[in-house]
Amino acid sequence: MKNIGIVGATGAVGTEILNVLEKRNFPVGDLKLFAAPEEAGQKIEFKGKEYTVEVMGDKFYEGLDIMLFAAGGGVSEKYAPIAAENGVMVIDNSSAFRLDPTVPLVVPEVNPEDIKTSKGIIANPNCSTIQMCVALWPIHKKYGIKRILMSTYQAASGAGNPGMQEVLDQAKAYTEGKEMVINHFAHQIMFNVIPHIDVFTENDYTKEEMKVVNETRKIFHDDSIRISVTAVRVPVLRAHSEAVTIELDKTATPEEIKALLETAPGVKVQDDIKNNVYPMPINAATTFDTYVGRIRKDIAFDNAISLWVVADQILKGAALNAVQIAELI
Amino acid sequence: MKNIGIVGATGAVGTEILNVLEKRNFPVGDLKLFAAPEEAGQKIEFKGKEYTVEVMGDKFYEGLDIMLFAAGGGVSEKYAPIAAENGVMVIDNSSAFRLDPTVPLVVPEVNPEDIKTSKGIIANPNCSTIQMCVALWPIHKKYGIKRILMSTYQAASGAGNPGMQEVLDQAKAYTEGKEMVINHFAHQIMFNVIPHIDVFTENDYTKEEMKVVNETRKIFHDDSIRISVTAVRVPVLRAHSEAVTIELDKTATPEEIKALLETAPGVKVQDDIKNNVYPMPINAATTFDTYVGRIRKDIAFDNAISLWVVADQILKGAALNAVQIAELI
Repeated sequence: MKNIGIVGATGAVGTEILNVLEKRNFPVGDLKLFAAPEEAGQKIEFKGKEYTVEVMGDKFYEGLDIMLFAAGGGVSEKYAPIAAENGVMVIDNSSAFRLDPTVPLVVPEVNPEDIKTSKGIIANPNCSTIQMCVALWPIHKKYGIKRILMSTYQAASGAGNPGMQEVLDQAKAYTEGKEMVINHFAHQIMFNVIPHIDVFTENDYTKEEMKVVNETRKIFHDDSIRISVTAVRVPVLRAHSEAVTIELDKTATPEEIKALLETAPGVKVQDDIKNNVYPMPINAATTFDTYVGRIRKDIAFDNAISLWVVADQILKGAALNAVQIAELI
Repeated sequence: MKNIGIVGATGAVGTEILNVLEKRNFPVGDLKLFAAPEEAGQKIEFKGKEYTVEVMGDKFYEGLDIMLFAAGGGVSEKYAPIAAENGVMVIDNSSAFRLDPTVPLVVPEVNPEDIKTSKGIIANPNCSTIQMCVALWPIHKKYGIKRILMSTYQAASGAGNPGMQEVLDQAKAYTEGKEMVINHFAHQIMFNVIPHIDVFTENDYTKEEMKVVNETRKIFHDDSIRISVTAVRVPVLRAHSEAVTIELDKTATPEEIKALLETAPGVKVQDDIKNNVYPMPINAATTFDTYVGRIRKDIAFDNAISLWVVADQILKGAALNAVQIAELI
């Protein structure tokens, strides 16, 4: 049994971490739930027992074996090193430590062995990165990927529960003939798509786009892969979709890629176009797998494959991946 | 003055053709409006005068100079050649004649001179193709494009008024807690994205995707360009968005591309990321221009540019382009 602490326990990811711990029968001993002062005092049920949400006090880490952080970069930067110094294994969902060379960045289906190098903190990658890596890793291992081009179709819940609520509120406002209120996105998201997630960086890519580039190279231990991303927010509630083209070193047919992915861990191939079967966010939502379809020989390159990848970004893209790491510890 | 006939006058594109003819002060003499028997008898106002929608009789072409077809491939295949044989210039919005080597396929900003080669029928390209060609043609002329990779975010109205209505109905059903009804798309479109537009072809690309490939080569008169597309339906009412990466022959900086597009016909550059300005469908809807933003040096290639293209696909992607062709005749 492990004593577990969850930071940001009332948020979209925190809530799902609790669900996943329960569903996967994680051997939870003591459980401590932390959140911001406004949320403290809330009661949350876990395996039939009620827990009270607390604020993080002076010795928040005491008695805990593993802490899962899902409360944003600022909180992680401040508290994760303290927990780690006091012997707690930290699994951090924020971007704070992902590119720190002393911190492993782990997708359990790809680089579980990196966990051993941890000095107390293990970083959970960005949601768009995780599902792409789960789908592409078996291909990279066997055929060598030299170039990745990706356009994303990212759900509103990538901005947490408030993001998801904003889509629902705008849908309601629209049907009731009222004005749509914009709080969490830069523009109206309902009936719109926004080619802008997170802030812009110096090279005019967004931070969200550059996360995929830099994190994938770190997870694959391969800095030679050329990667370019356009990250776009769409009015979907949960589950991110990705249109991906990969240029390969060794030749592979779509049939070989399909056969390879059919036995790949964490992957479900949904590719029966004759019957209109391909991955879609409404089907992937609330499930654990990474779905791959539309697998075809890309016609713009001599040796490339295009495919379509969908996964629930709150689960495989965050909570599930974090719990899988905890299971490996 | 030209005597004009519009086939499919009650549909999404037909309605906009009438609006565009009025807005651009096209010298319309007689006007005949055709539609399916179910629609016949409807009254439509144009420039303050009322017209009655008719079914196409035996000599539907009589007295007409130009006919604009916007009623689907079957109707065009049957009636367009008859009109052309009887001296009417046909501008056809369907895909029926687009790849016919004897029929010019025209985007007025790109290849207006091809109109002269017409033997009576001029084809209007696919909506996704038109806006991409308007944005890329100046770049191709100056720097040479050797490869185009595109992912689309296509509005529901690409399936006409019923497609647009289906999104609205599903939004209403959702907010009222009722079941969403699916009629015009393969799956629920509200809160979803569907990587499937038109039917699948032999190479596992969809017909919609292959239209962009084949039509662009014909419009640019360049069969050497390698093009790959993933076409995706999103819950947007009107205006298609496109994430595009182009590999170039000659080196170009993003600043040079911006400067070039700022003076390009039909193009408006919207690229001020510091102020969250980039093209979006809610802004492009009901306007005539093709908007380009997110112009940046692509980091997956040594010599490529990525950009984001948005236009109202019923207007520039269909009705406006058709009327522009009529103006050139």
